[in-house]
Amino acid sequence: MAKEITSRSENYSQWYNDIVVKAGLADYSAVRGCMVIKPYGYAIWEKMRDQLDRMFKETGHQNAYFPLFIPKSFFSREAAHVEGFAKECAVVTHYRLKNDPNGKGVVVDDDAKLEEELVVRPTSETIIWNTYKSWIQSYRDLPILINQWANVVRWEMRTRLFLRTAEFLWQEGHTAHATKQEAVEEAERMIDVYATFAREWMAMPVVVGKKSEAERFAGAVDTYSIEALMQDGKALQAGTSHFLGQNFAKAFDVKFLNKEGQQEYVWATSWGVSTRLMGALVMTHSDDNGLVLPPKLAPIQVVFVPIYRKEEELSAITEVVQKLRNELHAKGITTDYDDRDNLKPGFKFAEHEMRGVPIRVAIGPKDLEKGTAEVARRDTLQKQFVDQDKLANTVESLLDEIQQNLYNRALEFRESKTVKVDSYDEFKKVIAEKGGFVLAHWDGTPETEAIIKEETKATIRCIPEDLPEEDGKCIVTGKPSKRRALFALAY
Amino acid sequence: MAKEITSRSENYSQWYNDIVVKAGLADYSAVRGCMVIKPYGYAIWEKMRDQLDRMFKETGHQNAYFPLFIPKSFFSREAAHVEGFAKECAVVTHYRLKNDPNGKGVVVDDDAKLEEELVVRPTSETIIWNTYKSWIQSYRDLPILINQWANVVRWEMRTRLFLRTAEFLWQEGHTAHATKQEAVEEAERMIDVYATFAREWMAMPVVVGKKSEAERFAGAVDTYSIEALMQDGKALQAGTSHFLGQNFAKAFDVKFLNKEGQQEYVWATSWGVSTRLMGALVMTHSDDNGLVLPPKLAPIQVVFVPIYRKEEELSAITEVVQKLRNELHAKGITTDYDDRDNLKPGFKFAEHEMRGVPIRVAIGPKDLEKGTAEVARRDTLQKQFVDQDKLANTVESLLDEIQQNLYNRALEFRESKTVKVDSYDEFKKVIAEKGGFVLAHWDGTPETEAIIKEETKATIRCIPEDLPEEDGKCIVTGKPSKRRALFALAY
Repeated sequence: MAKEITSRSENYSQWYNDIVVKAGLADYSAVRGCMVIKPYGYAIWEKMRDQLDRMFKETGHQNAYFPLFIPKSFFSREAAHVEGFAKECAVVTHYRLKNDPNGKGVVVDDDAKLEEELVVRPTSETIIWNTYKSWIQSYRDLPILINQWANVVRWEMRTRLFLRTAEFLWQEGHTAHATKQEAVEEAERMIDVYATFAREWMAMPVVVGKKSEAERFAGAVDTYSIEALMQDGKALQAGTSHFLGQNFAKAFDVKFLNKEGQQEYVWATSWGVSTRLMGALVMTHSDDNGLVLPPKLAPIQVVFVPIYRKEEELSAITEVVQKLRNELHAKGITTDYDDRDNLKPGFKFAEHEMRGVPIRVAIGPKDLEKGTAEVARRDTLQKQFVDQDKLANTVESLLDEIQQNLYNRALEFRESKTVKVDSYDEFKKVIAEKGGFVLAHWDGTPETEAIIKEETKATIRCIPEDLPEEDGKCIVTGKPSKRRALFALAY
Repeated sequence: MAKEITSRSENYSQWYNDIVVKAGLADYSAVRGCMVIKPYGYAIWEKMRDQLDRMFKETGHQNAYFPLFIPKSFFSREAAHVEGFAKECAVVTHYRLKNDPNGKGVVVDDDAKLEEELVVRPTSETIIWNTYKSWIQSYRDLPILINQWANVVRWEMRTRLFLRTAEFLWQEGHTAHATKQEAVEEAERMIDVYATFAREWMAMPVVVGKKSEAERFAGAVDTYSIEALMQDGKALQAGTSHFLGQNFAKAFDVKFLNKEGQQEYVWATSWGVSTRLMGALVMTHSDDNGLVLPPKLAPIQVVFVPIYRKEEELSAITEVVQKLRNELHAKGITTDYDDRDNLKPGFKFAEHEMRGVPIRVAIGPKDLEKGTAEVARRDTLQKQFVDQDKLANTVESLLDEIQQNLYNRALEFRESKTVKVDSYDEFKKVIAEKGGFVLAHWDGTPETEAIIKEETKATIRCIPEDLPEEDGKCIVTGKPSKRRALFALAY
């Protein structure tokens, strides 16, 4: 059939691309590095967005919207920040086109040059902190707990659908606090929200921890991240939360009058997840037949396919299907009925597998006689016959089971790919031959981290928060270490 | 108090601005012409967006996302389109900044000049039709019914919060059809969706009609619009829907194989509403005390204010309030409890009036004794005492009544400001002295329309669809006319 995809063992990267394109998630556009998110992919993103939005609101946040453009001068107020982003940003220099004097379409109108160039936001700390300056006078104005859903642009040289694109969609939380402790707690709270979302909605196990200095966000004092392991043994950073200290408050002179009547700089956090999560979702669960979706994020949870030869068989099947669909809808389960008359059932089965619909229900004339239906689950590809009058309950619990099974399977995979090593030789061997997560002692210096990266391409994904302290020695320098860092090759 | 605003009679334009800023809807930003949409304003926009999104999905549309950037060459493929937009678009020319060699921040890196400049989308017909080309081969691929929620940029020289900003948020539907009739029906369906939304959710009466040739969207064959009348007698175009014919299909060479096996160009529509609706909402209902919101779009529908002197009074009031709030929540009504201890009730009342909360409930010690509460409605500023055990039901029906009253009031206003005139002298007099909607015969030519605009500043808002045909004469040229056009000064 036309929907064939490359197998994972043959070429993982091509397999990924095939799934994204052929399951109808996204496609390349005519604009370098920018993607088109197609309706099916966007529907999954909407489900992610809606759930995250609920979780943000439950933790007291409100949405707002800040400008797409950032004046160049704002951008360079925070030294580390501009260093981190200046090399990959789109710059608006003019505000008008005019007819080409040579008659060839339109050209930039040099009379419409901006006095100050505008950067298309790669992230919004600077424009937001410039705004917060006028919103914050006293401790009574704090905390400010704001989130924004937006598009951002980072001019990446090598792009991949969802994983690394010049433009992507994301949310960015930007909060302002009266005390350091409150800001640290906020940064930690939000990385936990992300971890909960990844585990419970994406069925994706993640390691929560702090970034090393070298891997921190440009302008942060501390960066927390959630790290997931993809099927090819590479890590993917799925979300970050930053404790920004007073860096942006100082850069934009944002002070408040505290309860004691003194002027103080405001404490800040920012945190974000993006359409990159779509890539993580694909690479956590999918297989050589196509996309596999956790039921909680599937736009269509159950698809019905009629098996028939004659027109009158179809109408009898349709009647039963309609009844069953109503029962499922009453339980809040989303369904579709694939009664296209120009395609064979086998083609439809393959297409719904490709698109990762969690459960397929096929009903033919024999099922009508017996009062049954054939129920196939996408995660295991197992089939069973179910009595029609038990179908709604069976499907309901099966959806929960699939959600749980996907998480368990991914966790088992990750555990099989996570090793502790205590020598640099072993480290190199594991990274080169097996991949996965490697827990190793490290002396805490950027120099040692740089050596390891240089020699093995592995980076410190994070210092996992739930790992107990232990006495150890850095695998490179032999210096004492109290905690293992999590290393991996990464996306 | 600090929240005072200019009255409408004193300066309507300043009144509008005061409301937008002081009710916390939006504010100017440091970037020329771009606004910050503040949390309260964004919460109203979210309610609009969610309802429109439901209505789009109910009419068979799906969301997707297309790139922010449009290659300059795409932009100029459709002649009328580029003519309409080239003069006001932001242009990206570079993709990197570098450290200023003179040590002053960052400058544009001339080594990072784009081969082809990118336009920040002012609207997405071109990039979308370039994409549709690869999605459409046969009639089986049609219709395509897609909507996008996005930000767009039009470099306006004179900007006003929500009404005219360089960047704004909007949705743009872009549909592709096999027949002309289907596309026309789609364009008409969507202008009706907008009209329904305006009337039933915004409580804003609108006139539905077709634009004259001069006022059409750049690239459209026909433009339908909904036109609302603001309190100052000026019209506001609140939404448009375009039948694009085959213009964009021809510009991007998008053909399909029809059922008869022939290649044919695809038929198109596009339609959009934007954050401009926020401005329309403000100027339809609000008064000299601040914002007035229709209950269906109010982020908080009911606010409770405790009236107390002593701490123990407060706790008894709080207990009653909590019970009443729970009863309202059970009915799906959103509430807030303003128990801030550093502000007096009068200040709170004024603030909630400023923010347009539809119903305020005040409860004091005497109410506790009597089992009553004081219920004040924002639209009429009337107050009544209500028994606590009837409060939930009273509030529920009052919210409906307020929604309906706002619509009726706005409709009555519009009717009082709509006149038919049959001479140009009368026309000029009405436009200059009274404003409002003027229905007049017109000979249908752009020349006459231009004369009227030149001499009176009034434009044709639309040819109303529900106006019966009648024999008349153009007020300027005396030529025969079958239908009156709707004229007004406009935002």
